[in-house]
Amino acid sequence: MTDRLVFDFAEGNATQRALLGGKGANLAEMMNIGVNVPDGFTVATGACVQAMNADGQWPADLWPQIVDRLNALEERTGRKLGGAERPLLLSVRSGSVFSMPGMMDTILNLGIGDVAAAALAAETGNERFAWDSYRRFLQMYGSVVEEVPHHVFEDELAALKARRGTTLDADLTADDLKELVATYKRVARENGAELTDDPREQLRRSVEAVFKSWNNPRACIYRDLHSLPHDVGTAVNIQQMVFGNRGETSATGVAFTRNPATGAKELYGEFLVNAQGEDVVAGIRTPNQLVELKDVLPEAYQEFIDNMNRLEAHYGDMQDIEFTIEDKRLYILQTRSGKRTAAAALKIARDMVDEGVITREDALRRIEPAQLDQLLHPGIDPAHTATPITKGLNASPGAAVGRVCFDADQADERGRAGEAVVLVRWETTPEDIHGLIASQGVLTAHGGMTSHAAVVARGMGKPCVAGAGDIHIDMAAKTLTIAGKVFTEADTITLDGSTGAVYGEALPLIPPSITDDFREVLSWADDVRKLGVRANADSGPDCDKARELGAEGVGLCRTEHMFMAPDRLPVVKRMILAETQEARQAALDELLPMQINDFDEVFTAMTGLPVTIRLIDPPLHEFLPNLVDQSLLVKSLEDAPDADPQELAEARELLGHVKRLHEQNPMLGTRGVRLSLLYPEICEMQTKAIIRAAIAVQARGLDPHVEIMVPLVALAEELLRMRDVIVKTADAELAAAGVTSLDYTVGTMIELPRAAITADQIAEHADFFSFGTNDLTQTTIGISRDDAEASFLAAYLESGIVPVNPFATVDADGVGELVRIGVEKGRKTKPGLKVGVCGEHGGDPASIEILAPHGLDYVSCSPYRVPLARLAAARAVLGYTKDA
Amino acid sequence: MTDRLVFDFAEGNATQRALLGGKGANLAEMMNIGVNVPDGFTVATGACVQAMNADGQWPADLWPQIVDRLNALEERTGRKLGGAERPLLLSVRSGSVFSMPGMMDTILNLGIGDVAAAALAAETGNERFAWDSYRRFLQMYGSVVEEVPHHVFEDELAALKARRGTTLDADLTADDLKELVATYKRVARENGAELTDDPREQLRRSVEAVFKSWNNPRACIYRDLHSLPHDVGTAVNIQQMVFGNRGETSATGVAFTRNPATGAKELYGEFLVNAQGEDVVAGIRTPNQLVELKDVLPEAYQEFIDNMNRLEAHYGDMQDIEFTIEDKRLYILQTRSGKRTAAAALKIARDMVDEGVITREDALRRIEPAQLDQLLHPGIDPAHTATPITKGLNASPGAAVGRVCFDADQADERGRAGEAVVLVRWETTPEDIHGLIASQGVLTAHGGMTSHAAVVARGMGKPCVAGAGDIHIDMAAKTLTIAGKVFTEADTITLDGSTGAVYGEALPLIPPSITDDFREVLSWADDVRKLGVRANADSGPDCDKARELGAEGVGLCRTEHMFMAPDRLPVVKRMILAETQEARQAALDELLPMQINDFDEVFTAMTGLPVTIRLIDPPLHEFLPNLVDQSLLVKSLEDAPDADPQELAEARELLGHVKRLHEQNPMLGTRGVRLSLLYPEICEMQTKAIIRAAIAVQARGLDPHVEIMVPLVALAEELLRMRDVIVKTADAELAAAGVTSLDYTVGTMIELPRAAITADQIAEHADFFSFGTNDLTQTTIGISRDDAEASFLAAYLESGIVPVNPFATVDADGVGELVRIGVEKGRKTKPGLKVGVCGEHGGDPASIEILAPHGLDYVSCSPYRVPLARLAAARAVLGYTKDA
Repeated sequence: MTDRLVFDFAEGNATQRALLGGKGANLAEMMNIGVNVPDGFTVATGACVQAMNADGQWPADLWPQIVDRLNALEERTGRKLGGAERPLLLSVRSGSVFSMPGMMDTILNLGIGDVAAAALAAETGNERFAWDSYRRFLQMYGSVVEEVPHHVFEDELAALKARRGTTLDADLTADDLKELVATYKRVARENGAELTDDPREQLRRSVEAVFKSWNNPRACIYRDLHSLPHDVGTAVNIQQMVFGNRGETSATGVAFTRNPATGAKELYGEFLVNAQGEDVVAGIRTPNQLVELKDVLPEAYQEFIDNMNRLEAHYGDMQDIEFTIEDKRLYILQTRSGKRTAAAALKIARDMVDEGVITREDALRRIEPAQLDQLLHPGIDPAHTATPITKGLNASPGAAVGRVCFDADQADERGRAGEAVVLVRWETTPEDIHGLIASQGVLTAHGGMTSHAAVVARGMGKPCVAGAGDIHIDMAAKTLTIAGKVFTEADTITLDGSTGAVYGEALPLIPPSITDDFREVLSWADDVRKLGVRANADSGPDCDKARELGAEGVGLCRTEHMFMAPDRLPVVKRMILAETQEARQAALDELLPMQINDFDEVFTAMTGLPVTIRLIDPPLHEFLPNLVDQSLLVKSLEDAPDADPQELAEARELLGHVKRLHEQNPMLGTRGVRLSLLYPEICEMQTKAIIRAAIAVQARGLDPHVEIMVPLVALAEELLRMRDVIVKTADAELAAAGVTSLDYTVGTMIELPRAAITADQIAEHADFFSFGTNDLTQTTIGISRDDAEASFLAAYLESGIVPVNPFATVDADGVGELVRIGVEKGRKTKPGLKVGVCGEHGGDPASIEILAPHGLDYVSCSPYRVPLARLAAARAVLGYTKDA
Repeated sequence: MTDRLVFDFAEGNATQRALLGGKGANLAEMMNIGVNVPDGFTVATGACVQAMNADGQWPADLWPQIVDRLNALEERTGRKLGGAERPLLLSVRSGSVFSMPGMMDTILNLGIGDVAAAALAAETGNERFAWDSYRRFLQMYGSVVEEVPHHVFEDELAALKARRGTTLDADLTADDLKELVATYKRVARENGAELTDDPREQLRRSVEAVFKSWNNPRACIYRDLHSLPHDVGTAVNIQQMVFGNRGETSATGVAFTRNPATGAKELYGEFLVNAQGEDVVAGIRTPNQLVELKDVLPEAYQEFIDNMNRLEAHYGDMQDIEFTIEDKRLYILQTRSGKRTAAAALKIARDMVDEGVITREDALRRIEPAQLDQLLHPGIDPAHTATPITKGLNASPGAAVGRVCFDADQADERGRAGEAVVLVRWETTPEDIHGLIASQGVLTAHGGMTSHAAVVARGMGKPCVAGAGDIHIDMAAKTLTIAGKVFTEADTITLDGSTGAVYGEALPLIPPSITDDFREVLSWADDVRKLGVRANADSGPDCDKARELGAEGVGLCRTEHMFMAPDRLPVVKRMILAETQEARQAALDELLPMQINDFDEVFTAMTGLPVTIRLIDPPLHEFLPNLVDQSLLVKSLEDAPDADPQELAEARELLGHVKRLHEQNPMLGTRGVRLSLLYPEICEMQTKAIIRAAIAVQARGLDPHVEIMVPLVALAEELLRMRDVIVKTADAELAAAGVTSLDYTVGTMIELPRAAITADQIAEHADFFSFGTNDLTQTTIGISRDDAEASFLAAYLESGIVPVNPFATVDADGVGELVRIGVEKGRKTKPGLKVGVCGEHGGDPASIEILAPHGLDYVSCSPYRVPLARLAAARAVLGYTKDA
């Protein structure tokens, strides 16, 4: 007994992908649920594998089995392959277990020949159609099976059109096409083709060609690129051709089972009578709305509605369906889950749950978290037809329209005066913060996904296109040049932070919309997820936004952003430049009430929820001018004959401080706990401010939950000593206020490899861990986010050395492994240790998938990413994987 | 039955440290081998512990046991405590299981009182001695036991000397001292002391005071600092006082059993007749050479020689012995292993092995590897008495004397003209290399143990004092200011790179000496050690030195040092600034023959041994001027009315390149494999040069062993792609030359945490691993060696947050653990994978102890550290530990 290698569609179902390939299994599934698909059969993948392993030699029984199923098909359809009456035409298509779109070969209209073409012309009354089908067959068969170079046919077609004085295929007559068929045969033979008139032999050769195409170079490269196996082979689907262009009782069309823009349950589709599928797409004729089919072909219409409902119910998702009506008979050619807007995705999910078609869990698995961004930020009206003038990194989602502005002060001034401006900078620094606040969005030439501009913009929910390497900014001339076009401060541009596109004109925007569907679906996610979701937020308004979007606390309150406010920066500078401890203390005393106020705002907004406040982190020189600027300033004062000596002396003194604090590698420098151990008075001031604010908030009847976090710890000893300073200061404040009801905890960031590796030691002194995966990525991989994205990392992404930007999605094998080690070792010391992630990855769904299994209690991300994180956390529980 | 808590010295031995404390056990041991030590007994540590645990309450049986042993001691010595004739005087000393020098209390001369003082005066015929002993006792007993502030006694002594018009104790007469005794008693009582005349009560109180001193604050802090346990308590040693100042038949002295300067087996010591130990040390009288004792006190002399020989033979090491002769009777007070010079250490070790006293293994355990540095570099003559004017880091050992020079070009010029110069810089860069070569040594204000200056100086075997933060350099005025003193280029300074000291004058140097002893002892180390030792060397002379010092290959040949040579830098710059691939290739073509020559030299010198060549590592901007300098240059050209427009244009263009290549954190930047993947033509040129050189060397009948190493790999994919470039290039060269007999391997540095963590993936593409622990330290701990040592790391070391500089001795828990993980994972993929360490730690004995157990095949270090590494590797096998 020999193996079955060929199966009728009617025999299979969707579970048989390995046997029948994806396409074969889907066709079988449709047929099985009673949908009318063009009939046919599938040569199983094993046949291809056996042939491959035998140097192309077919299994002995394969051809007889194909012939057997072909005979049966001829019987079922009442047609004969290549027959002189009612000829049967076939498509021969590859279809492997995984999708490899366009990588392998297809032959259509197989069975047509001189005899069948005449028969088809007679049957359809459309001679031109018959000969066009014939010449198309020859073209495909010739190049795929007989390996005639494709251009040979294209050249002849072009030559014929030239002789006829046209550039359109449609202008060629039936006689022209008949002539072309003869020409094709001749040139094919001239190019070595051994044509045969026997359609069954053509079928055999076509199946063989599809087998071979499994190992053509582009298919092999594609599999290498996607790490797919080479040894599973392809199935071959042999299916009856049906034609929507057989006359006025034939038609073709596409439809969605629900509105893909809004999600509404309504008929949404188009059709054309007497047309082929490509006519609908090509846009030469204007298609009719699907509802009109009811009047034209009422039975086919009703059958379509029935099929559509059956398909949606069966697949449990909104379907995108292609169909053809041949002589009043409806055929479904293809169905698949339909692409949709985020709003539609939410509405459809909610409706289908209400309809009982799917469960809430199914619904959550269906919605791609990244899509939610569309709903949280204004976007460019999708109807626009403008072309981007350049592209950068899609660093912060949403769209912005505004006049170009090159300077933060001016952006602040113009923005507050009501003008819509877009800040355009080589890169931004903390000193530009007021300019960012007043702008609609920001465009930078340097920096990447985690550059200052990107991080701050995401925090504010403002669009940002970063690292647009092709733009040139002339600060002196105040011009922006992109691809030779010069923009001044009077010109308007549009940024799409969701795609990275930049447009040299104003485009219409559509506003964000947090709908009931959005709220409802996210509430389901909250029911499912185990991971907490907090926000990174530094101010009252940020915290309000975070709560609104569902944050369950603040996971990272960066205190240094507070230092950057224009009214505070001078005091901070005085603190840094202080020559004596007294002078430093005096500046700190001035900062204390400001910080109390900061924390009061945050605790008030977050009452009842935990707030993790990170003590000062950046190196002090970040608050001073940069070394090059200050050196140039001193030099120009020195060279100016009429310079004010006082001014020069001050500039020189400041330069001295800048030099003293300058670091070769500030990322690895005197930051975080290192700074606080050198100047414990800064940490004391911050602790005082935190505790006093919490006392005040509690006195107003609110409920502050205080978590104090020490950054950049590498050594257990650092945390031990820092904790001592914090606890002494905090307890003294509580004692002085006579407050006993206020609890606080002290924890640490784990953001250096050593901290993760020695987490067991560090946990001795920590009430909680928060993984700072941004910095951990930098030191683990040894890349600087300030530099890498604009240099080698871009090249790495382009050439596939890294599959994704590790600052966008966490590096699973390196950084992810350190998080795993850190959690494991930390909990070895303290089994109940609370562990979170507060790097940018906290808001990235793919990173949540990677990190959540390591045992995190929560992630923290910018407020606008909170909904994404909530959904992603639910999907992590539901075992969603990319391949599902 | 009660526990024994008090033991005669004669009962114990050296193994009973836990019971008797270190000092008690040692005294017992000496007594046991027949050495005459002053008799006495020890209160065991357990007594102190029991008292501590009972709030100071003594075990009931303790005092009776002490009294019992005291009675026995009185009997053995024929003396009575506080007796009116032949009084017994005692010392009461602490002595815990571990050494805590000076942390606890001691009382001498206990037993003296009005009666015993008179008896002592009569017995010795020395009334002044008797009353001086009495006042000394009161001073110690009063402050230690009765807790009278120390200054109370000092004030009275000072007042008395003032009244007598002297500043010397020795000018006080017996009557003066008698008066002082009365005064001491009075002021002690006035300050709350309850003095007693009963010497046995004094003894009880003294033992109690020693118990208490176990928990005095400075002892507790000391134990905390050294991580010693608080609960083991101290023993108390009660011992007969003996006096070398009882007259002309008494003496006191110190001796070494061998010459501690040369190691020669000869009498080496000094004595004084009728003197106390402190007189020998104080230098008021000039001591006699020990050999003269033969004539003065011949029996005591012979007894001393016997005792000395017995002690050395018993302890198997050269001893440093203190002795006293009381009335012709020799007493050994103390013996311990004697400190010695490196030369002496080697000679003594070799001689003792020859004498059969110790084994070679014992000898290796005895020699501190770091000491060998003395022999490899010139040192300051230890006879000097100069005081350092400042101290920096001891960055590269040896001493240098020379005139100050601020500029590498000038150092080059002056040095080549025969002048001895010391290069003084804020910090050095690769552009200073020729200045370093021409200098005797280098002094920098910035940078640490692994700064450029330090690394290069160590490689050259030149002294370097780095990070001397107190020095101020005025480049414009060409002055160096240290502690207010100004040095110009005409002034001479001396550096001690072994200690970090800087002297403001010329000091005499002694030359290095590689003796036969040195070679012999290291050959023993080679027999024992399992770890290979290679050198980091980039040139023929470096390689020759490395072989001479015993290197078994080159573990790190840095190719970029070759690029820094003055004749090559312009070509390297052209390569970097090339706008087109052609221009870059042209520059590379110029570099190719130079690099072939470099590698030819290295392979020739190292014939028969492996040479690991690291492909280009530093970021390209290191070869260009720095951003600040170039910005200032452009600005001054812009401002100069008569500037050459051509020059300005070129300066601006160069500034553009500098800006383009500038990185915020170059340590994490476009370096190593990242650079080579962006510009594979650089790596191709280097590979060509390596292979062509090896072919040429082989053709001359030599035997090159080629290992090509890719730096800064973080991802397996990087190495996969780089290896492909290397192998294709190398194989093409071999094929073109028709050579089939030349093997080469391709491996990688493991110097990023991610590389260690994913070593299993990386090992797929690596023939060997070499851990770059310098860079691994930077990224694991998140510290920049360019910055940290001059900033927070210095503060961390000072305040004990880190016990040692992690750039000097590898961080065991962090970096060491990553090395462990890296080796384990690498060998999981390739069981026989060859693994080395080529960071600076490769030459640090403590680091070798930490890293060797992780399974390394070899370490590689600068040539001058090779002997240290050989010895340390042997000691690692012998299980040497710091505490042994």
